[in-house]
Amino acid sequence: MEIEDGDTSLEDLIKSRVKTIPDVPIPGILFRDITPLIGEFSVFQQIVSASVRAYRGTVVDYVAGIEARGFIFGTPLALQLNAGFIPIRRAGKLPRPTIATSYTQSYATSTIELHIDAVQAGQKVVVIDDVLSSGGTAAAAISLLEKLGAEVVGATFVIELTSLGGRARLNGYPVHTLARY
Amino acid sequence: MEIEDGDTSLEDLIKSRVKTIPDVPIPGILFRDITPLIGEFSVFQQIVSASVRAYRGTVVDYVAGIEARGFIFGTPLALQLNAGFIPIRRAGKLPRPTIATSYTQSYATSTIELHIDAVQAGQKVVVIDDVLSSGGTAAAAISLLEKLGAEVVGATFVIELTSLGGRARLNGYPVHTLARY
Repeated sequence: MEIEDGDTSLEDLIKSRVKTIPDVPIPGILFRDITPLIGEFSVFQQIVSASVRAYRGTVVDYVAGIEARGFIFGTPLALQLNAGFIPIRRAGKLPRPTIATSYTQSYATSTIELHIDAVQAGQKVVVIDDVLSSGGTAAAAISLLEKLGAEVVGATFVIELTSLGGRARLNGYPVHTLARY
Repeated sequence: MEIEDGDTSLEDLIKSRVKTIPDVPIPGILFRDITPLIGEFSVFQQIVSASVRAYRGTVVDYVAGIEARGFIFGTPLALQLNAGFIPIRRAGKLPRPTIATSYTQSYATSTIELHIDAVQAGQKVVVIDDVLSSGGTAAAAISLLEKLGAEVVGATFVIELTSLGGRARLNGYPVHTLARY
C-alpha cells in the first residue's frame, strides 16, 4: 500500500510549508527544513494521520525512530498504532548495551545504535525518519533491527528526495512517503 | 495544578520500568533510562495522558521539546493539546536563524538553540523534557522562549530528581512531574 498515488493535497500542503535552505549542512546540499510542518498543529496532525493510514491492516509492534527528527514523527505514529517506540540513536547516547553500525552519507560517516533488548526476534517494526535521501541511514537502521531478529514491515518518511535513490536502496521493504522532491 | 499529590499508581508504574544505570555519563551520576517507558505502549500512553491532564483548562499554543528525549514526550503532548511543536536543539542543528544560550550542567557546558521565528510574542508555550535534574537546561530553554516574547505556562518532566533542586530553580513556573526520585 504505497502512498505514491495518494494524497496530492497533503503533498502540496507539505511543500507549501517546508523551507528549503541552500548549502546546509555543506555547500551544494539543499536542506529541507521540516520545522514549519510540526509548528502548525493541523499540518502536523494530517501528516501523522496519513502515516497511520499506510499501516491500516498491518501488525506493528514497534515504531523505530531515527535520531532526532525521526523521534518527532515516530512517537505520535507509535501511539496511534498502539505500538511501542524504539529510539535509534547516534553513537554514545544510549546508556545500556547496544549494537551499532556505521555508514557513509553523501557528506559524512555516522554511527547509529540500538539497545540490544529493544526488540525481540519476530517482532514487527516500522522505521521512520523525516527525510529519505540516499537511504543510507534507513538501511543501517533496518540492518540493526534485523540483527536482533525483528521483521521490518515498512519504512515511512515525510519527504522523499527522489533523485538520490533511497527507494531503490530500500528495495524489498514497503516505503511510504508523503511529499516527493 | 501540580501533579505532586496525583497519581501514585502511575508513579509506581514508571519507577517499575525505568532502568537506573550507575556512572553514566560520568562516574558518580545515576542515569535514569526512560527507554522502557516508551517501548511499552500502555505505559507510554498513560504518561502522555497524564501530561495532557495537567494542562486541562490552560491555553497552550506550542509545546517546546528539548533535544532529544523531550521530542519523544513532547510531540504526542502537542498533538493532544491541539498545539504546534517547537524543537529546542543542540548548537548547530537548526538550519535557519536562531537565538542561542549556553548553560552549565553538573558535568558539562551545553548550548541550545531556537529558531527566531518559532514563536510569536504573547504565545503560550509548555516546555518539556524527560528528566528534571538541576533545572539548568529547562531554565535555558525558558529564557530563549521568553527572549522571543513567549509566555511559558508550564514545564513538564516525566521524572524529577528532587535532590538536585530543579523545581526551586524553575520557581514561578508551574512544574508538572510524574515520578520523583
